[in-house]
Amino acid sequence: MEDCIFCKIIKSEIPCAKVYEDEDVLAFLNIMPVNKGHTLVIPKEHYYNIEDAPIDVISKVMSVVKKLSTAVKKAADTEGFVVMQSNGKSAEQLVPHLHFHIIPKFKDDGLKYWPQGKYEEGEIEEYRKKVIGNI
Amino acid sequence: MEDCIFCKIIKSEIPCAKVYEDEDVLAFLNIMPVNKGHTLVIPKEHYYNIEDAPIDVISKVMSVVKKLSTAVKKAADTEGFVVMQSNGKSAEQLVPHLHFHIIPKFKDDGLKYWPQGKYEEGEIEEYRKKVIGNI
Repeated sequence: MEDCIFCKIIKSEIPCAKVYEDEDVLAFLNIMPVNKGHTLVIPKEHYYNIEDAPIDVISKVMSVVKKLSTAVKKAADTEGFVVMQSNGKSAEQLVPHLHFHIIPKFKDDGLKYWPQGKYEEGEIEEYRKKVIGNI
Repeated sequence: MEDCIFCKIIKSEIPCAKVYEDEDVLAFLNIMPVNKGHTLVIPKEHYYNIEDAPIDVISKVMSVVKKLSTAVKKAADTEGFVVMQSNGKSAEQLVPHLHFHIIPKFKDDGLKYWPQGKYEEGEIEEYRKKVIGNI
């Protein structure tokens, strides 16, 4: 895709701190890391997000996420990490090319998950039916 | 696994707000949602996390994540969502059974990504080599 920054990285038109490459997948360090070692894993074919990409492409990317995650946590000298992937503008997906984050996490890094809410009585069943109705 | 709450849900020893089930995968609503419709997708076989699970199991789970993500965003009446998965104690993985979160996101929900940092000069190359050295 012409204006996609990740497509330009794949074509080596823009440099990156590459950590892995195969026929279908590229991985490089995020230059603005949540924690150092924060890695992005992307398919070489352009897809917007997880809804857009076929499952065989997602599976290839996930096999690299799995392979690299142990290397990322060792590089960052920690035992924990988060895999994260954003879809759509309201999820602040900034680059319109499917990408998975591998983010090393430390016990005392102060990074907290978003606050969790709760359902009022009966509301969870309402949402359950809404999800099922849209499958 | 005997003491695993998700294994108990799979065996129907504990109830859940189920939205999907097949031979290998179960999905249900998180009772403490980040946003309403927040869904958890798990393999029926017990694995601790993404490092522990074989890639064919992860791929099966991801195919359900993909399938359900569109339904979850429609149920929550939004266009964006985050897929997230925690590994290890320092990443606050609370249940020791591989699970992917599908979290509906709204433009004005106030939920922000963790702050991003930066590398000092030369440091990104140092981390790049550290990751590569651990693959």
